[in-house]
Amino acid sequence: MSDTAEELFRRLLEKDRRAAARLITMVENGQPEAREALRLLHRHSGRAHIVGLTGSPGSGKSTLTCRLAQHYRSLDRSVGIICVDPTSPFTGGALLGDRVRMQELSGDPEVFIRSMGSRGALGGLSVATNDVINILDAFGKDYIIVETVGAGQVEIEIVKFAQTCIVVTMPGAGDEIQAIKAGILEIGDIFVVNKADREGALRTLSDLEMMVETRPVREEPTWTPPVMSCIALEGTGVEELAGAIDDHWVYLRQSGMLEQKIIGRMRAEMLEILNLKVTRAAGAVIDSEGRGQDIIKRMVGRELDPHSAADEMAGLLAERELDVR
Amino acid sequence: MSDTAEELFRRLLEKDRRAAARLITMVENGQPEAREALRLLHRHSGRAHIVGLTGSPGSGKSTLTCRLAQHYRSLDRSVGIICVDPTSPFTGGALLGDRVRMQELSGDPEVFIRSMGSRGALGGLSVATNDVINILDAFGKDYIIVETVGAGQVEIEIVKFAQTCIVVTMPGAGDEIQAIKAGILEIGDIFVVNKADREGALRTLSDLEMMVETRPVREEPTWTPPVMSCIALEGTGVEELAGAIDDHWVYLRQSGMLEQKIIGRMRAEMLEILNLKVTRAAGAVIDSEGRGQDIIKRMVGRELDPHSAADEMAGLLAERELDVR
Repeated sequence: MSDTAEELFRRLLEKDRRAAARLITMVENGQPEAREALRLLHRHSGRAHIVGLTGSPGSGKSTLTCRLAQHYRSLDRSVGIICVDPTSPFTGGALLGDRVRMQELSGDPEVFIRSMGSRGALGGLSVATNDVINILDAFGKDYIIVETVGAGQVEIEIVKFAQTCIVVTMPGAGDEIQAIKAGILEIGDIFVVNKADREGALRTLSDLEMMVETRPVREEPTWTPPVMSCIALEGTGVEELAGAIDDHWVYLRQSGMLEQKIIGRMRAEMLEILNLKVTRAAGAVIDSEGRGQDIIKRMVGRELDPHSAADEMAGLLAERELDVR
Repeated sequence: MSDTAEELFRRLLEKDRRAAARLITMVENGQPEAREALRLLHRHSGRAHIVGLTGSPGSGKSTLTCRLAQHYRSLDRSVGIICVDPTSPFTGGALLGDRVRMQELSGDPEVFIRSMGSRGALGGLSVATNDVINILDAFGKDYIIVETVGAGQVEIEIVKFAQTCIVVTMPGAGDEIQAIKAGILEIGDIFVVNKADREGALRTLSDLEMMVETRPVREEPTWTPPVMSCIALEGTGVEELAGAIDDHWVYLRQSGMLEQKIIGRMRAEMLEILNLKVTRAAGAVIDSEGRGQDIIKRMVGRELDPHSAADEMAGLLAERELDVR
């Protein structure tokens, strides 16, 4: 329990799994020593290929993640897996088969698996997930797969700064495709129709191809997202998916887009931490100071409107130099 | 175009619909005059019953919203409807039947309907939606229905500070109920199984009742959320739903929970505006100042970790007293 940040950092670089696990727990619990360790290890991160994986509920994301990890292991590459579940800690949706597969995987010293729930405050999960990505990156993992349980806005925010983002769906009614349409189409670098042995797979595949072709893009695209089919349970299509992930990585490096993605992720990561700091600092001011309580009281009494209240709070925080460490 | 804030505010209180529409557009476009009008009208808000309505895609939320509004009109109560679609502006999913119903409604001077998309920056939609709620409240609407298109995290954040929150689902496979489980169960004050003439309605109803009974609650509940069935297309069950909404309102007032909800909403509204201010101010510093750019550059160069970067940015913002008006 008396691990110092320096000690944990040193053991992490020596590939000590327990140090990695311990540091992640400290991050989740918001322990201040974690901050120092994160600072030290930042210099050693930046080598992993960060792969995000999201999609419709029930589309078999966990199975696909397991299969991908097994494939990478067969090539002797090391893998970190982060399962993100922003919903209540009560759900925990992994199927038994996945749990067994995950357990097999987790016996492998070159695989590191961690589930993360919404323990922290609002916005905290995304910050903590980034911290864990950075830890596993410095820990030397070649691939870090960030898998989300659902496909909501929080999940999209979390995976969209991965270097390669995979969107998974499955054959089914128009509704599922509809669900993908909603915001998620823009973030996919690779689209997968899993459970491709089910009825309607070809239809879903062609619908998806059409949607990807006509998707709104901000800039002239130089990467056309492939639409692939998979049967993750049987392992079919997994090698091809891994190939597409590597193709995307080569594209990112050669086009200079990797640098852009890294800049975007750094910026987003910093802004998220900043917002979390501000939210916590403002919460502390409201809960502990007369002037903070007074702001809310005047709002409720309709004397102070929300925008002016935010200005006042910003003033109170600036006085404190936002110092909430 | 030369409407001053005072002029718009005065016309709003005189029930001028064009003034309301104009002010909402100014809010969406982030025009500074809107701020002043919002400040003036705050004193005149706080009378409406704010009803949030969310749920699975395809569950018929829009139809239900229309029917509710028609019911309120039959009782001579005025209604504001805000349709929130946090996904890209490309979707716009209202069915033709709903559009016709909405058009009928929108001919009624006592109904005000507005759709809001994700035009603004990240987090901006929630702030803008709250601004519009406050405008319609001061405009004198008895009920303000905030309906979301999807059921993602952003939607939940938007409706959870409504005074009465309705969660809609429909008969179907376990998957739909699963989707409701994820985070949304906690926020519902009333649950509706719509399309209750479909196969499996009774099963869905009893599943949902079970889930509501066993849902995790933070405090000892004094309100047990009713689980109701509806066929919104035919108008069946709408009167009962309106009755439950009024029951909940009476409960909120008598239990003192209304005060708590208002305090919670004020606090959340202020924090969201504050976060948006901070994000925008930090973005401006990064885009326009050497010191801001330098922070990102050192992050990318692995000299500066994200948490220390956020501290530095907080310092830069505090120097400027966060003044981004």
